[in-house]
Amino acid sequence: MTALYDVAAIGNAIVDVIAPASDDFITAEGLDKGAMTLIDQARGESLYARMAPGIETSGGSAGNTIAGVASFGGRAAYLGKVADDQLGQVFVHDTRAIGVHFDVPPLAGGPGSGRCLINVTPDGQRTMCTFLGASTELTAADVKPEIIEGAAIVYLEGYLFDPSEARRAFAKAAGLARAAGRMIAITLSDAFVVERHREALMEFIDTQVDLVFANEAELTALFRTTDFDAAAAQMRQRVQLAAITRSEKGSVVLAGDQTHAVPAFPVEKVVDTTGAGDQYAAGFLFGLAGGRPLPICGRLGSLAAAEVISHYGPRPQVNLKALAADKGL
Amino acid sequence: MTALYDVAAIGNAIVDVIAPASDDFITAEGLDKGAMTLIDQARGESLYARMAPGIETSGGSAGNTIAGVASFGGRAAYLGKVADDQLGQVFVHDTRAIGVHFDVPPLAGGPGSGRCLINVTPDGQRTMCTFLGASTELTAADVKPEIIEGAAIVYLEGYLFDPSEARRAFAKAAGLARAAGRMIAITLSDAFVVERHREALMEFIDTQVDLVFANEAELTALFRTTDFDAAAAQMRQRVQLAAITRSEKGSVVLAGDQTHAVPAFPVEKVVDTTGAGDQYAAGFLFGLAGGRPLPICGRLGSLAAAEVISHYGPRPQVNLKALAADKGL
Repeated sequence: MTALYDVAAIGNAIVDVIAPASDDFITAEGLDKGAMTLIDQARGESLYARMAPGIETSGGSAGNTIAGVASFGGRAAYLGKVADDQLGQVFVHDTRAIGVHFDVPPLAGGPGSGRCLINVTPDGQRTMCTFLGASTELTAADVKPEIIEGAAIVYLEGYLFDPSEARRAFAKAAGLARAAGRMIAITLSDAFVVERHREALMEFIDTQVDLVFANEAELTALFRTTDFDAAAAQMRQRVQLAAITRSEKGSVVLAGDQTHAVPAFPVEKVVDTTGAGDQYAAGFLFGLAGGRPLPICGRLGSLAAAEVISHYGPRPQVNLKALAADKGL
Repeated sequence: MTALYDVAAIGNAIVDVIAPASDDFITAEGLDKGAMTLIDQARGESLYARMAPGIETSGGSAGNTIAGVASFGGRAAYLGKVADDQLGQVFVHDTRAIGVHFDVPPLAGGPGSGRCLINVTPDGQRTMCTFLGASTELTAADVKPEIIEGAAIVYLEGYLFDPSEARRAFAKAAGLARAAGRMIAITLSDAFVVERHREALMEFIDTQVDLVFANEAELTALFRTTDFDAAAAQMRQRVQLAAITRSEKGSVVLAGDQTHAVPAFPVEKVVDTTGAGDQYAAGFLFGLAGGRPLPICGRLGSLAAAEVISHYGPRPQVNLKALAADKGL
């Protein structure tokens, strides 16, 4: 069947609140620098009260990725749950405005839209505290077969292993994709997510996944090692394709017994690394859906990541299709 | 009486929605490029639906200025009205988080928080459409004498001439400031505001104002001329002090028979001019409240304006006190 979409992504629909912070602030708040921590609403309100003035922008890992795919000119669909509130309306707008198909009805009468409080330290590193809110209420009923079956690649975030309802939606999507012969990609999302759900993730990768995205910390956490090469060797055995991001060292694409080292694009000043991994995945998935060679997929990922870390916010501020053309990609 | 605050600002409390747009979009929507147009909620929703993905950030002209004053290390207070909703909470947070005193109670049960849809064209120029919402419900009762009487400078935005309730609050604040011997500053805000309220603005300037901020278009609109020098000469007759901003040409400070030409700070790339005038006023007011010479006040204004136009959003992303120290100001 011809695909209606290049990529369909499923994730926690989250609005980001991004503010600059000092390293002292991260320490004083007892936050894990660079990680994503789940918080409840009360903790969210108390942390927010102490944060610096910020900007609000639609986020969510898979939401960022699918926005990137659309910015490259890819045909894209998204599944995620917001509440029927102002931040939810912002999320819906931003997702649709870039041309992503998104028709999951918002949640009425439950918790508010999910929010991620992101403190960005002067080194550009982001530390995230997420109140999942309405995003946990994505249900299996929200996963429409025609979207999953119509997508060349179905992309899932590891963050979805946290909320139980969303995990059922995730399982349904994977099942539909598998049955339709579609490719399934997953990002490990966060080293702590890997710690919390190692067995389930491993099982899922072994049985259903074609493509894994991970950064070094997530990869080594998955295989309980500090040795990158050892972890990469294990990953290679378990999945057909893996793309491992290594910050300024670029990325490594593992495909059977082939290895492609992909350089990063130079960035004048790293402002905010929020969305770097998400945009890497966007470029890679867009390239893959278009049948481009793996090293080019990696370069498209590097390009999108370089754009997003040069400004505040997790989604591209320029048209990635034009940017790629400009770079001869 | 010693001042509790360097500056107290009164304005329409607005959350900005900022998105990139093409010049064709501005034309197709029939918008006045570079201007601020008042719109109702229905028009706001229909325009928003066609805008690109954006970022949300606290805005409002005087709100931006007072955030800038606080960023310079000035003691600051703000009066403005938001609704008791998510965007209102964002506005309250951002204002307080930078150290501004802000205790006007939010509006319950009325329209939502005011919003400004800002389309930024590739030249960095911003075109604004404002749905005033709850901001029009700032009442005279919200203007606490202890704040106005406790401020060295009371700063008012010309935009407040549009909503009638807010205009009464504005008049009360001016009266209190006058009676307490405080300095009154006003920004003309927008050439169309000047067109709509020329007589009232002129009367107010003649009778109550010590310091006028304007850009070239506003200045010439006020005096119904296209001749900058002629308009400047008239302004000089009517007010003790005026600071006229001229984009990349810097600014001109008129003080009696003295004239100070102030250069702009160079900017590598103009990303978004939203807040340029507001931040100029912030630097100028901060300098003036601190007794700095007028050319230095102008330079502080230029510095803050240069910072804000180098990124999306109307408020500083760096600490202006540190930036000023860095530049020897």
